Amino acid sequence: MPGPLEGITVVDLSRVLAGPFCTLALADLGARVIKVESGKGDDSRAFGPFVNGTSAYFASVNRGKESIVLDLKDAADRRVFEALVAHADVLVENFRPGVMARLGLDSDVLTKRHPRLVYAAISGFGQSGPYSDRPAYDLVVQAMGGLMSLTGHPGQDPVRVGTSIGDITAGLYAAIGITAALRERERTGRGTVLDIAMLDCQVAILENAISRYLSGGSVPGPLGARHPAIAPFESYATADGHVVIAAGNDALFEKLATALDDDALRTDPRFWTNDLRNANVLALKAVIERITRQQPTRHWLEVMAKAGIPGGPINTVADVVADPQVKARGMIVSIDDPNAGTLRVAGSPIRIDGAPPAERLPGAPVLDGQRAAILAELGLA
Amino acid sequence: MPGPLEGITVVDLSRVLAGPFCTLALADLGARVIKVESGKGDDSRAFGPFVNGTSAYFASVNRGKESIVLDLKDAADRRVFEALVAHADVLVENFRPGVMARLGLDSDVLTKRHPRLVYAAISGFGQSGPYSDRPAYDLVVQAMGGLMSLTGHPGQDPVRVGTSIGDITAGLYAAIGITAALRERERTGRGTVLDIAMLDCQVAILENAISRYLSGGSVPGPLGARHPAIAPFESYATADGHVVIAAGNDALFEKLATALDDDALRTDPRFWTNDLRNANVLALKAVIERITRQQPTRHWLEVMAKAGIPGGPINTVADVVADPQVKARGMIVSIDDPNAGTLRVAGSPIRIDGAPPAERLPGAPVLDGQRAAILAELGLA
Repeated sequence: MPGPLEGITVVDLSRVLAGPFCTLALADLGARVIKVESGKGDDSRAFGPFVNGTSAYFASVNRGKESIVLDLKDAADRRVFEALVAHADVLVENFRPGVMARLGLDSDVLTKRHPRLVYAAISGFGQSGPYSDRPAYDLVVQAMGGLMSLTGHPGQDPVRVGTSIGDITAGLYAAIGITAALRERERTGRGTVLDIAMLDCQVAILENAISRYLSGGSVPGPLGARHPAIAPFESYATADGHVVIAAGNDALFEKLATALDDDALRTDPRFWTNDLRNANVLALKAVIERITRQQPTRHWLEVMAKAGIPGGPINTVADVVADPQVKARGMIVSIDDPNAGTLRVAGSPIRIDGAPPAERLPGAPVLDGQRAAILAELGLA
Repeated sequence: MPGPLEGITVVDLSRVLAGPFCTLALADLGARVIKVESGKGDDSRAFGPFVNGTSAYFASVNRGKESIVLDLKDAADRRVFEALVAHADVLVENFRPGVMARLGLDSDVLTKRHPRLVYAAISGFGQSGPYSDRPAYDLVVQAMGGLMSLTGHPGQDPVRVGTSIGDITAGLYAAIGITAALRERERTGRGTVLDIAMLDCQVAILENAISRYLSGGSVPGPLGARHPAIAPFESYATADGHVVIAAGNDALFEKLATALDDDALRTDPRFWTNDLRNANVLALKAVIERITRQQPTRHWLEVMAKAGIPGGPINTVADVVADPQVKARGMIVSIDDPNAGTLRVAGSPIRIDGAPPAERLPGAPVLDGQRAAILAELGLA
């Protein structure tokens, strides 16, 4: 595939999500990704939803990759693996720390043998520290990293972010580290060893909440749909659902007061500045909802669009797929699957040089699907 | 700063979060980031929390950058800007589409003049499509991109993810595009124009939910703290709070049944496979909570750690900052602020070549703080 990572080969030992999400981003930029799987295959081949017995979920995260099954404890397969690594630019793994060392394939060994290799290890807690060898899943780092304590409504049961943001942010940070290391390697000829912990990545995205706590504030809690420091900036009930309104500064608030045509919003001194609005945020919500409840969401979307006020509907995934902007941006693409036929999946969000995104992308590999071709390329057929 | 982006200069016209979060990641990898601000400065200089009148929030996102105030409508300042761009490798902006063109500084103009420039535009909806010129904030794309429809408890009021994940994912994808483009430039000598839309990035991270819907499933809704396809994989009430348990496969479930020492878990046919457990997830939760409610969270954490079952506490931000693993990984760092003194902030989660992270990092710039030095460097003093 053409793209800024054209010519780069990634040997991908990773499974399920954090690692595969990283290598998906690399594949979308033109890298060749060779998935090295155990005989059972990546666990996520067994995760639903299924189409004709094939995991559409696996296909969506592994589209555009190749697959070869290797048993890293088998001598012949190890020779294949070593040859693969010798021809590769990047290795990605998300084993628990220690697994690669027990195989005799840790970063020290491999980068000594292949000084140009970029070696990226993604793990739950990182290669160091007291929890290093503990197992982790997305849910565990969402909980331990503080994000769940900030998400939901006060006093209600805990809420996990509805997408695996613990895996995804680790995958994205790993991709940043790898691409930066590849730039460095073009200049110096030397590779890099990267150690990405899912928990660290959760801490790195705590943003306003951690800044608030660390600068002497109190411990932040969940705020429903509300922003901690800006008002009005949340969801409001309408006659038939909800609308979000994000009036991020005084000028936008004035526009909103005019668009909603309400005297209280215009004149009540409790709402004169963002700080005052934030201090009186519940009173502000009551005033706004008294108005927004009178008309359906569609009405308020038109009012806000006309007035240039940032806002929108709370879309379901079905709404997202049908959305004119999402369609115009080409974010839903088709892939061919040997068993499931045509599947639709989310595409890459990185648009390059104004080129329209491809409407059809290569599908995910069947287990061991490229074995013969890879062995032939390596001269091991 | 040393790092794989050493020698790279980024001219950063971006404000508030998506762009600044991108350039923070670049600065943490060794790039020099020069923030070009209006006379009023980045809006987020006015966002709390404040320490001695300085925004600790601004400082946390803009640490390690330089600042120069330029009025891009002023002829003299434009000459400074043009000289800056001529010396830069990367330009990042997150204006609404059209703003740079009205200034005569859009990507076409700048990349024609500077063919090696990597130009990254981050916007709410992207440079194309029917919503292109609409304003957006994090909340708007969290709502329109489907994430809010997946987060929270069924039937309750909408929930925004408690960190600005709409801005953050766009910033991270932009950083991936930029670093990949820099690698490409080392080989070809040519820059790249990147168009990153916050909404596209939300679609790209919908993961299991969009795969489920697009493969013919129903429209997914919020699931509290539960995973859509794996059980047990959620939060469970304890005698004094909650614990998360992520038993992602049958072997872990067996370990859990043994660790909780419960016959129902071991023998009930409703719990024999992950598919069955997922189909009977509420019954499963009732059985597990009957046990977990008998002891405090701390007890269950020890039980799970001993048994090797992925799980953890739901940490507050205060717990996160005090956590031994977070400390050991050096994720909380100190920065010096000319007004606020020493501030503590989250560090970078990208660990390179086993080097321990710095405990102290350069702080954020005061508005226009590097003007004289930059002008002198450009020979315009």
